[in-house]
Amino acid sequence: MATAAVVGVNGYLGGELLRLLSYHPNFDVTQAVSRSQAGRTVGDALPQVERFGDVVLAADPEKLDTDVAFLAQGAGEAMAIVPSLLARGIRVVDLGPDYRLPQADEYQRVYGRAHADAEHLGEAVYGIPELFGDQVPAAKLVANPGCYPTATLLALAPLAQAGALHGPIVVDAKSGTSGSGAQPSQSAHHPEAALTVRPYGTPEHRHVPEMAAAFGRLGLGPVPLVFVPHLVPLVRGILCSIYAPGDAGTDPAKWAELYNRRYQGSRFVRVGGVPRLPWAQGTNRCYLSVDSAGGAPVVFSAIDNLGKGGAAQAIQNANLMFGFDESAGLAHPGYGV
Amino acid sequence: MATAAVVGVNGYLGGELLRLLSYHPNFDVTQAVSRSQAGRTVGDALPQVERFGDVVLAADPEKLDTDVAFLAQGAGEAMAIVPSLLARGIRVVDLGPDYRLPQADEYQRVYGRAHADAEHLGEAVYGIPELFGDQVPAAKLVANPGCYPTATLLALAPLAQAGALHGPIVVDAKSGTSGSGAQPSQSAHHPEAALTVRPYGTPEHRHVPEMAAAFGRLGLGPVPLVFVPHLVPLVRGILCSIYAPGDAGTDPAKWAELYNRRYQGSRFVRVGGVPRLPWAQGTNRCYLSVDSAGGAPVVFSAIDNLGKGGAAQAIQNANLMFGFDESAGLAHPGYGV
Amino acid sequence: MATAAVVGVNGYLGGELLRLLSYHPNFDVTQAVSRSQAGRTVGDALPQVERFGDVVLAADPEKLDTDVAFLAQGAGEAMAIVPSLLARGIRVVDLGPDYRLPQADEYQRVYGRAHADAEHLGEAVYGIPELFGDQVPAAKLVANPGCYPTATLLALAPLAQAGALHGPIVVDAKSGTSGSGAQPSQSAHHPEAALTVRPYGTPEHRHVPEMAAAFGRLGLGPVPLVFVPHLVPLVRGILCSIYAPGDAGTDPAKWAELYNRRYQGSRFVRVGGVPRLPWAQGTNRCYLSVDSAGGAPVVFSAIDNLGKGGAAQAIQNANLMFGFDESAGLAHPGYGV
Amino acid sequence: MATAAVVGVNGYLGGELLRLLSYHPNFDVTQAVSRSQAGRTVGDALPQVERFGDVVLAADPEKLDTDVAFLAQGAGEAMAIVPSLLARGIRVVDLGPDYRLPQADEYQRVYGRAHADAEHLGEAVYGIPELFGDQVPAAKLVANPGCYPTATLLALAPLAQAGALHGPIVVDAKSGTSGSGAQPSQSAHHPEAALTVRPYGTPEHRHVPEMAAAFGRLGLGPVPLVFVPHLVPLVRGILCSIYAPGDAGTDPAKWAELYNRRYQGSRFVRVGGVPRLPWAQGTNRCYLSVDSAGGAPVVFSAIDNLGKGGAAQAIQNANLMFGFDESAGLAHPGYGV
Repeated sequence: MATAAVVGVNGYLGGELLRLLSYHPNFDVTQAVSRSQAGRTVGDALPQVERFGDVVLAADPEKLDTDVAFLAQGAGEAMAIVPSLLARGIRVVDLGPDYRLPQADEYQRVYGRAHADAEHLGEAVYGIPELFGDQVPAAKLVANPGCYPTATLLALAPLAQAGALHGPIVVDAKSGTSGSGAQPSQSAHHPEAALTVRPYGTPEHRHVPEMAAAFGRLGLGPVPLVFVPHLVPLVRGILCSIYAPGDAGTDPAKWAELYNRRYQGSRFVRVGGVPRLPWAQGTNRCYLSVDSAGGAPVVFSAIDNLGKGGAAQAIQNANLMFGFDESAGLAHPGYGV
Repeated sequence: MATAAVVGVNGYLGGELLRLLSYHPNFDVTQAVSRSQAGRTVGDALPQVERFGDVVLAADPEKLDTDVAFLAQGAGEAMAIVPSLLARGIRVVDLGPDYRLPQADEYQRVYGRAHADAEHLGEAVYGIPELFGDQVPAAKLVANPGCYPTATLLALAPLAQAGALHGPIVVDAKSGTSGSGAQPSQSAHHPEAALTVRPYGTPEHRHVPEMAAAFGRLGLGPVPLVFVPHLVPLVRGILCSIYAPGDAGTDPAKWAELYNRRYQGSRFVRVGGVPRLPWAQGTNRCYLSVDSAGGAPVVFSAIDNLGKGGAAQAIQNANLMFGFDESAGLAHPGYGV
Repeated sequence: MATAAVVGVNGYLGGELLRLLSYHPNFDVTQAVSRSQAGRTVGDALPQVERFGDVVLAADPEKLDTDVAFLAQGAGEAMAIVPSLLARGIRVVDLGPDYRLPQADEYQRVYGRAHADAEHLGEAVYGIPELFGDQVPAAKLVANPGCYPTATLLALAPLAQAGALHGPIVVDAKSGTSGSGAQPSQSAHHPEAALTVRPYGTPEHRHVPEMAAAFGRLGLGPVPLVFVPHLVPLVRGILCSIYAPGDAGTDPAKWAELYNRRYQGSRFVRVGGVPRLPWAQGTNRCYLSVDSAGGAPVVFSAIDNLGKGGAAQAIQNANLMFGFDESAGLAHPGYGV
Repeated sequence: MATAAVVGVNGYLGGELLRLLSYHPNFDVTQAVSRSQAGRTVGDALPQVERFGDVVLAADPEKLDTDVAFLAQGAGEAMAIVPSLLARGIRVVDLGPDYRLPQADEYQRVYGRAHADAEHLGEAVYGIPELFGDQVPAAKLVANPGCYPTATLLALAPLAQAGALHGPIVVDAKSGTSGSGAQPSQSAHHPEAALTVRPYGTPEHRHVPEMAAAFGRLGLGPVPLVFVPHLVPLVRGILCSIYAPGDAGTDPAKWAELYNRRYQGSRFVRVGGVPRLPWAQGTNRCYLSVDSAGGAPVVFSAIDNLGKGGAAQAIQNANLMFGFDESAGLAHPGYGV
C-alpha cells in the first residue's frame, strides 16, 4: 500500500483520479489539494466517491508527504512545485503539460511562458506505458500525456515503427466537452455545444509539438501531422480518425496483422472492429481498428479523454512506478450502453 | 403559382419538403404520396405543417398531374416512375440516388441493381445550382445531389477549379442521425447513437462515385478522395472537415480570396469564419471557411443534410426550373441557438 | 411599417428577436443595444441573421427613437429606462421581469430590490394575448410573461375558468438549457448538463408569484400551485406536465371539449394529441393535450422558451399593439425533426 | 463461488448483468442464453466485457445447470421456464414482469395474457432489499422490480410508513431511452428522441399496479398514485419527482430526519441534497432528497434504470440469496461526469 495525494481536486481530472483510486487496492489517498475548495472535504466536493470522504482539502501542496503526488493542474502550476516535491522524495505523476516537451525553449514557444524547472525537464518520462513503459518503473517524475497525443500515438505507432508513414498524416479528432475542463466556458456552454460540431485549434494545436516530440523519443524522424480537433456533443471520449497514406501497401489484412502483433498481450490496447466510445468511456482502454478508405489506411482510435487520456493512464503509470500490477484498479470494462 | 406533388411523405426529406413548401409563395402542394400512410392526410402525418393539411395521401404516384413532382424515395423507386411522369409533362426533382450517376453500369456497380431508365440518365441535370446552375432552368429532370456530395463539392470547387488539388484529399464528414432516415435502425437507436461517434462507409461510401462524377461534370480530372462519414449525436447537420494538401501555396489569405471570389453574390453559400451548424440547420445555406492546418488548407463546410443537402436544395432547383426567385421560400436564417 | 429597437442583443432572447424580425413584413429594426458588444454590428453578433447586419450596437438606450423597443434584459434593467422611453413616445415590450408583478412590494419580495418605476407598474399589460389580448392593442407598455408562466397559464386557463381547479395543482416543468441564458454557468456547462435532469427552484421559483398574479388578473381566486422546474438536456423548449385533481369529473372527452372550445380559432394554441417539442421549437405555438392519469386530468403543454415563451410572443404582442396581423412574421411551423 | 447463467444476453439488462458480473468476486457466469445470437459467444456480443468471453450463447435455457439464473426477458417468457428451473434446484432472479404481481388475475388484466405459473406467483419475493430484504435470503425465486417502482417505492416508503401520505401522490418520472430496450423503435429513434421530452403511459402505466401491490406488501392501505413517465434525451437514468401533499406537516427538517433515519446504514440508498444522475449511472445506488415545494414535500429519486432499477439490484438480491456480502461487485461509484 502506498499513500497518494491528488492536487487539483476541483477539475475533472482530479475528480476522475479520486473516483478511480476509490477502488484501487494499493493506493490510499491521504491528502488532497484544491485552491478553490480549501477547507471543504473530498466528500463535499465529490459526494459519490465516498472513500476518502473525510480528507480535508488543503489550499496548497506545501505539506504533502505522500509516496506519490498526482498533479492535475493547468500549465505553469506543476513546474512551480515539482522541484520541492521531488526534493522531499515524493514521486510525481503530472497530468498537466509542464513536463511533456523535452526542451525548455519549445515549452516557451508553445505555452508562452518561460519554463521554471528546466532541470527536471530532461528526466521526466513521457508516460504512455505501451510505448515507453520500460522507462516508467524507475521514474521519479512522469509527464502524463495529453488526451489527443495518447489516442494518436497509440494509433500511429505500429505504422510509424514499420516505416510506413509518409506524406502528410491527417488526424481528425472528435472530443467530448469534458476535455475543455470544469470551468464554464462559451464553447462548452450547453446551448452552444449541444447542437454542433466545433473544429478548433487551427493552425496548430498545442498537442502537435507534443506528438512530434514523442515520435522523436521513439527514434523516428519527423512525421508531418495535420491535426484538427473538434468538440462534439458528448461528455467523455475521443475518437480520432487517422488517415495515413504512405508506403503501407494496400492490403488491410497486413495492416491488421501489424496492429495485432504490436499490441499482443497489451493490458489496455484492443485491436478489432470499428470501436465504440462506450467501450472506452470510464476506462483505461484504447480501442483501435485499422481499415481501408480510398485505398489508404484509416485508423480509428477511441479512448476516454479523462481515462486513458488522463487519470486512468496516470494511475497505470503509478502502478508501474510502485511495482503494482499494471492494471490494478483499472480492469473494469466500459458501460457499453 | 405552380402545383407540386411530394412523393414519400413519410420520410424525413418528404416531411422537410412539405414544411418548406408550406410557406413558399409560388408552389402549392396539391398531391402527396405515401405508401405506408395512404388514406391519411398530410395533416395526420405532419400536424405541425398545417398548410396542405387536407391533402389525402395516395398510395402510388399514378394519378399525379402537377407541374412538378418531388420524389423523396429510396434507391430504385424513382426510376420506376420517372418515365411516366416525364411523359405526362410533369417535371421532376428526384431527391433519391437514381439519376445522380451519369452511367448505368456505374449505377449497377454502386447500387447493386440494373438501371431501369438509362434513357433519361443522360438528360438528368445534377442539381447543385452554385456549380451547375445554368443547366437547371431548362431541365425536365433534376437529380438532387446527396447531402455529403453537396457539402463536399461546394467546399472543394474553388480549389479544384484553381487547379490546386493534388494528392489525396481527405474528407472527414460528421453527420446528424436524420441522415440515416426515418426508419428506426440499430445505428440510429438513441441508446447506441447518443454517446458515441460512429465512423462508417469504409472502404467506399456510395457517395464517392457521385462526387467523382461531379468533378467530371466540372471538366476536371480525377480527384483522389478519401471520404469517411461519421454519425455524431446530432439530429440535423453535416460538418465536413476537408484536408487538401496540394499546390495551393501556404497563404491562407489567398485561399480565402479564392473562396470569396468564387461565391461572391451567391444567395446561399457563405464564406467566413469557422461555421456553426445552427446557422445552417433548417436552411438552404452552406457555410464555408478555409483555414490552415499543418501548412495545408483545411476547409470546413456546414449544411443541413435535410436542407441544402436535401429538401431545400430541391426547392432551389425547382425555383430555377420554374423561373421563380432562386430564394423563394428559402430565405430564412437558421435558429443560431 | 414600424421601426423597432432591440435592447440586449447579446442574450438569447435578443438574438431570437432579431432572427424573427428579420423576416417580419412590418417591423424594421433600425437600432440595437448591447452593452457588452457596443461598437460591433448586428452582423458581427449574429452572422446568420443577415438583415439588419449593418446596424451598429449602441452601449445604452439613450438615443433610441423607434416606434417600439423590445427590452431583453435581466431584472432591474428595464425599470431604469422605461420611464424615459415612454416619455419619448416609444412603446415598450419588456421581456424581462420588471413589470410582470402588479405590486411593487411583491416585486421587492421576489426580486430582492425596490421597484424603481412603481408608476408604470399598474399600467403594464401582461402580455399573453390568448388570455389578455383585448388589453394589448392599446398598451404603451407590455410585460411579456416568463416562459414557465406562459406554458402553465395557457394550459390551466380552460380548467380554471371552468371552476374545475381545486386542491394543489402540480406543475412539473422540463426546460431546455437556453432558458438559463447566454452567460456560461455551472448548471448549463455541457459536461454537467448533458447527462442529467436537474430540478431546481425549490421551495418557490420566481415565476410562482407571477402565475398567482395572472390568476388574479383572470378574476379567479388563488390556485394552490406546486411548481418545480427541471433542466433537461435540450437547448430549446419547455414541456410542462400539469396534474390537476379537482372537480373536473372523470371524462377525458369533456376536458378535451373544454380545451377545444377555449382555443377554437386561436392562431397559436393547438389542442390535440400528446405534443412533441419539435413542433413548437422556433415558433410562437403552444401545443396542448389533455389526458387522464390516475383518474385526474393531466395537461401537457409544449412551447419554445425563446419563442412563445419569449421573443415570438413579444412580437405577437407588438403585432397587436401596432394593428398588424397577429401572426405577421410568426406563421412558420416548427422543424418537426 | 457460485455459478450463474444469464438468459437474454442481447438486451440491455442482460448486457449490464454480464458487465457487472465480470468483476464480481463470487459469481462465475458459466452459461448464457440468447435466442437471437445463439452460437455466438459472449465475447462476440459484448466485446468490452472480456471475462466470460468464451461462453457460447445457447438458444434456449433447457440445459442450464448453474446455481442461479438471471432472467432478463420480456413479459411471458420467464413463467414458461421458471417451473423447470426451480424443479432442477436452480434459484432464479427474474428481471422481467412475470412474478411481480401477487395475483394471477391482476397479471392477466395488466399484461393481457393468462399467467402460466400461478403456483410460484405466491412464493416469489419482491426484490427491493431495502424494503423486503429479510425475505430475500431464503428465496428460491426473486421478482426483481421494475425500474420505476424501485425509484418510486424507495422514495415514498419513509413517508408512507410514517402514515403521512394522503391525497393523490403525483410521480413525474423522467427516464433515459435505454429503458425502452435494445430493440430499435420509433420512440427511441435518435432523430425523434434527441430533441424532445415524451410523456407516455397514460392513462395507466403497467408499473402502477406493481407499485400498488408493493404498498400492500408493506402492510399499507391503498396510496392513490398519479404516475406519468417521460422519455428524456438521456441513455441511462431515471429521475422521479414525487409530489406528496398530506399530513407530513410543513417542516422540511422533519422530513429529512425521517429519510435519514429510515436509510441509516443502507449500503445503497443515499439521502442528501438534490441528486445528480451521474452519481447513480452505472451503479446500484439510489440518491434521494426531500425538499419543500408549495408547502408540501417533493422527493427527488435518482437511479440507473439498468442498475438499481435492473441488473445491479438483481445482483444485490443474488448476493443476499447466496450469503455473499450485499455489496459484492456493486461498490463502485458513478462517473460523476
